[in-house]
Amino acid sequence: MIKASVIGATGYAGVELVRILGQHPAVQLVALTTESYKDQKMSAVFPHLVHGVEMTALELDLVAVVEKSDVVFTSLPHALAMSIVPAVVAGGKKIIDLGADYRLKDATVYGAWYKHQHTDLENLAQAVYGLPELHRAQIRGRKVVGNPGCYPTSVALGVAPLGRADWVDWDSLIIDSKSGVSGAGRGLSLGVHFSEVNENLKAYNIAGTHRHTPEIEQEISGLAGRPIKVSFTPHLIPMTRGILSTMYFSIKSGVGVKEVYEAYQAFYSQEPFVNVLEPGQLPQTKHVYGSNYCQIGLAVDQRTNRLLVVSVIDNLVKGAAGQAVQNMNLLFDLEETVGLRTLPIFP
Amino acid sequence: MIKASVIGATGYAGVELVRILGQHPAVQLVALTTESYKDQKMSAVFPHLVHGVEMTALELDLVAVVEKSDVVFTSLPHALAMSIVPAVVAGGKKIIDLGADYRLKDATVYGAWYKHQHTDLENLAQAVYGLPELHRAQIRGRKVVGNPGCYPTSVALGVAPLGRADWVDWDSLIIDSKSGVSGAGRGLSLGVHFSEVNENLKAYNIAGTHRHTPEIEQEISGLAGRPIKVSFTPHLIPMTRGILSTMYFSIKSGVGVKEVYEAYQAFYSQEPFVNVLEPGQLPQTKHVYGSNYCQIGLAVDQRTNRLLVVSVIDNLVKGAAGQAVQNMNLLFDLEETVGLRTLPIFP
Amino acid sequence: MIKASVIGATGYAGVELVRILGQHPAVQLVALTTESYKDQKMSAVFPHLVHGVEMTALELDLVAVVEKSDVVFTSLPHALAMSIVPAVVAGGKKIIDLGADYRLKDATVYGAWYKHQHTDLENLAQAVYGLPELHRAQIRGRKVVGNPGCYPTSVALGVAPLGRADWVDWDSLIIDSKSGVSGAGRGLSLGVHFSEVNENLKAYNIAGTHRHTPEIEQEISGLAGRPIKVSFTPHLIPMTRGILSTMYFSIKSGVGVKEVYEAYQAFYSQEPFVNVLEPGQLPQTKHVYGSNYCQIGLAVDQRTNRLLVVSVIDNLVKGAAGQAVQNMNLLFDLEETVGLRTLPIFP
Amino acid sequence: MIKASVIGATGYAGVELVRILGQHPAVQLVALTTESYKDQKMSAVFPHLVHGVEMTALELDLVAVVEKSDVVFTSLPHALAMSIVPAVVAGGKKIIDLGADYRLKDATVYGAWYKHQHTDLENLAQAVYGLPELHRAQIRGRKVVGNPGCYPTSVALGVAPLGRADWVDWDSLIIDSKSGVSGAGRGLSLGVHFSEVNENLKAYNIAGTHRHTPEIEQEISGLAGRPIKVSFTPHLIPMTRGILSTMYFSIKSGVGVKEVYEAYQAFYSQEPFVNVLEPGQLPQTKHVYGSNYCQIGLAVDQRTNRLLVVSVIDNLVKGAAGQAVQNMNLLFDLEETVGLRTLPIFP
Repeated sequence: MIKASVIGATGYAGVELVRILGQHPAVQLVALTTESYKDQKMSAVFPHLVHGVEMTALELDLVAVVEKSDVVFTSLPHALAMSIVPAVVAGGKKIIDLGADYRLKDATVYGAWYKHQHTDLENLAQAVYGLPELHRAQIRGRKVVGNPGCYPTSVALGVAPLGRADWVDWDSLIIDSKSGVSGAGRGLSLGVHFSEVNENLKAYNIAGTHRHTPEIEQEISGLAGRPIKVSFTPHLIPMTRGILSTMYFSIKSGVGVKEVYEAYQAFYSQEPFVNVLEPGQLPQTKHVYGSNYCQIGLAVDQRTNRLLVVSVIDNLVKGAAGQAVQNMNLLFDLEETVGLRTLPIFP
Repeated sequence: MIKASVIGATGYAGVELVRILGQHPAVQLVALTTESYKDQKMSAVFPHLVHGVEMTALELDLVAVVEKSDVVFTSLPHALAMSIVPAVVAGGKKIIDLGADYRLKDATVYGAWYKHQHTDLENLAQAVYGLPELHRAQIRGRKVVGNPGCYPTSVALGVAPLGRADWVDWDSLIIDSKSGVSGAGRGLSLGVHFSEVNENLKAYNIAGTHRHTPEIEQEISGLAGRPIKVSFTPHLIPMTRGILSTMYFSIKSGVGVKEVYEAYQAFYSQEPFVNVLEPGQLPQTKHVYGSNYCQIGLAVDQRTNRLLVVSVIDNLVKGAAGQAVQNMNLLFDLEETVGLRTLPIFP
Repeated sequence: MIKASVIGATGYAGVELVRILGQHPAVQLVALTTESYKDQKMSAVFPHLVHGVEMTALELDLVAVVEKSDVVFTSLPHALAMSIVPAVVAGGKKIIDLGADYRLKDATVYGAWYKHQHTDLENLAQAVYGLPELHRAQIRGRKVVGNPGCYPTSVALGVAPLGRADWVDWDSLIIDSKSGVSGAGRGLSLGVHFSEVNENLKAYNIAGTHRHTPEIEQEISGLAGRPIKVSFTPHLIPMTRGILSTMYFSIKSGVGVKEVYEAYQAFYSQEPFVNVLEPGQLPQTKHVYGSNYCQIGLAVDQRTNRLLVVSVIDNLVKGAAGQAVQNMNLLFDLEETVGLRTLPIFP
Repeated sequence: MIKASVIGATGYAGVELVRILGQHPAVQLVALTTESYKDQKMSAVFPHLVHGVEMTALELDLVAVVEKSDVVFTSLPHALAMSIVPAVVAGGKKIIDLGADYRLKDATVYGAWYKHQHTDLENLAQAVYGLPELHRAQIRGRKVVGNPGCYPTSVALGVAPLGRADWVDWDSLIIDSKSGVSGAGRGLSLGVHFSEVNENLKAYNIAGTHRHTPEIEQEISGLAGRPIKVSFTPHLIPMTRGILSTMYFSIKSGVGVKEVYEAYQAFYSQEPFVNVLEPGQLPQTKHVYGSNYCQIGLAVDQRTNRLLVVSVIDNLVKGAAGQAVQNMNLLFDLEETVGLRTLPIFP
């Protein structure tokens, strides 16, 4: 059994990790830590865990956590994981950070977007961006995984197959993303107040101001082979879970949707968690609800020579906790899908 | 492997059965039938099944289905299963009916409420009401199971422990139930039109007119040891899944919530799917979302000498498909919880 | 023009008052006060006001407010209005309090439920409970109005016509109420966090612990002519606006729904804001959305000798701000419906 | 009083017209027609009308309707109004069509998109596209108004001020629109089934296949002064009312948001129903809920040289019935805002 701990187990991504790890056949949870609910039973704070997780959330004792764990998950606001990772690595254990600290390879970019100087350049240099569908080979055997953000996951999976072709103008990429409210976390604000969100719709952090922008650009630039800047616009949708990203590219005249579909199919044919829909079909967030799956739809608008890609994920699973467990499976040479094959809940 | 078929696999309860059975380690799905989507791949109709269920929905060929199945599930409008059950029983196979045809022991009561004469009295006499927490011993070894309705499940689990005590006036029972919209099925009507239901709330089929009333009364009468009539009022809530039933009893003066709680704890202590909350805690439907669990909260209002019981289930799982699989596990001497321990999705 | 001020204009009831008063043909808004948004334009905080209300929210200067106003509305947490009312009355102006301080006639009951000693017994004695349909005559000419709570409004309107008849056992009354989330106010808490409320349902403050209980009992006792205790159970519904109360009475054998309906029709025939539905019809909260109307449905369950009454209101309008304006119209001898005839928004 | 009729009064746009016209101080409703609810009282079908509209919905008798009306509104599926308009015009009355038949000036474009040959070319030639903010002068005195679609209204208002400047590349325009479910009408389909839409999100009719595309292009081409093709992608959002359109343009390097904002302010400064938000503010659909207002937010992404425009309307009011009444006010030389100044409902 892999001994796993979650530091920050009482936010939405953290408790989702607990749910998934608590049902994982090869994992034993050994420590769950919290700032807000110290010494309370997890099932008292989150009654949905009552039949499966009998642990108590504790204040963080980092030495003890490292000592007893094979792998540590951190699910914390940015700038906190970087003070934890060195101790885990020094202790010879693996760490998967669900926050932003180990995603951006360039520490100056991190500093510019997160207004905080990175203090763990050594491990940052060793860290891998944990998107298995793009970086599987580099993830295996690594010590530190920067688990991708929810929006970047939906985008990178949506455009990855285009990296092999010469069809699209990467500079033309416009990303219009829509997210459920759980992506904003469990903290309190008017922005997540039911009466302000329900039966309402808005864009936020637009025009290149959302912090997932550099992470998206890092992956897109990798696919394009040169630095790319994108327009990324997030929207808040009155639902709890799910991200849908609509992506627009200028595409070479004459490239049809069948060709694009075949390239996507080829790229993802062996991927257990990504499904490419046949042209004419479009994905819906509910079709991946509560699961680690991603579904992708494709269309070419011949009138405007544009390729449209629509991708959906569950922001808390493939966009956070599920992907973290997928990375853990890779780190420990398990079957990549173990503990993650639960079918989506519909309706 | 148990060979299982679902007749009526493309309604909400049917497809939920497919989802659960498709992930059950001891089950092999052998036939899925449909009226509406003949010869279509299940995953084309329900894309959430794409990674787990590769079957095609077929028109019903009853002889073939019985032939190849160990157990048949029927998930059909009332009055249809009674023309299927005899053939299954004659073929020596087990059948679990998620509809209403085999729930009411008294065929005249069935006829009065469903406006249809029962035509399979022989199997009705043999059938068992498939609520394991109340009738587990009678379910084992039976051929025909009448799987309980969603409302009656939430009510019967909520009041069952009171059958042993002498505390409540059974005639005083008032049941105010609230259900998500999926309970109304996948058929089209203004009553399930999003714009009519969203941001809206109503009672319906009130004052003893809802067809779950006789089923509730059958179980309550069994607990009380004499015929009881109840006030049962269902309400439609703008959410997809979940039932919450609030039940009001006149209670003997002097009986406190601690006493009641201990009786409930004792009654359910060995039950894998029912959780009684400590006094002061109240259940929420989201805490059982997508799962086979039931949670129950208790309170005594000393000012009015009333006992309040609040129970929650997922109407499509413990209220339909999950309970059907729980019954199947019993019929085939499997561990009762196999395939059903998935934790609820939260948030 | 009546010069009106709102103290506490940036909570949900307060801003709803601003919306209604801002469109009232006989009202001029002269002061809006706030704790949270001092010196901000109302339309910057609440952009829906941009085309109709050009005022700035100010810190409370009570002397100035009284000086410039003919009527003051207070929309504050309990125990605050009682320090404001004396100054308004002393200044010779009218005051309508949307909070709890002037609703309960018995100050010891207030103290027991609100854990705060009432400090303005003089004005409390003069105050009228501002439910026009029950107390219209007493409201006219009064100086201080205690505007009813949202739940009590839905209940009192639902049962008022029974006060004239001898049909029901008042002690048998069970009230199962369901409210949208805006009733919990604009303050932040997990209880109004979108991801915790959406697709969820719960009871709260049950078994005689909700602070609207004594207010309900005061009005019921008035109708019954003797002290009555009721079971009142509130539930939180995943919608923004609307209250539906389902009320259960034991009723004299032989009294039919037609008789009850006719009594209700007679009682409410001249009321501009209350509509009694014909037997067989049931009210929906959406049918009064955004309006000052109340709709009531009736049924008699002959099987159990119970009368069911279902009433719906918009909690922020008839349950708060609209009713306050209705009271203002009465205080100033205006047509009672002025500024309040806007039809509900549907769907 | 203007005598007004609504042909097709029991769809969502039709009944919204009835609600607005029923409260309009200069209008008398004289006939409401229906296919589905013949001879039923409007308030029986739509109980929110009970306090304001006492009419019965009748089968269409066109001669009688024209005879008694000064203005006729048609709210019908496409291809039906064109058989009604000639009779209304021949009768010397005005007509405002909320459907698609009189919006596209080019009948061949209409035929290509709606798969139906236009049979009333004469009136089509006389008709005006009823977007007052762009075509006010042409609307006055006209007989036939083609009332704009909901999406095109949100788009045309969002980009209209750019027609005067030389900043944007019109060919670069990408429109990502999101609509509430009421835009799909009151007809039944799985696409509006609550359990399929709630807690879900999807794109539909993408890549230049939605029928509002040619209407959008007609208006955009008018602004650009040459034929323009656009990418228009609609999405279905789990809410009842509201459209938000996010529009992306390539913009000349060096043009800042302040410049753009000032141009928008200048363009809309005299418009009663359009509000341009200051840079940094973004519109939300809830801020125009139930009202005829449009709010617009602006941003320039200097990193990618893109202008982002975000516009919101209520799809049933400014996107349908409210705009139709605004057009009626123009046709009859009333103050343009009469009957339409109701503030949005928030929250």
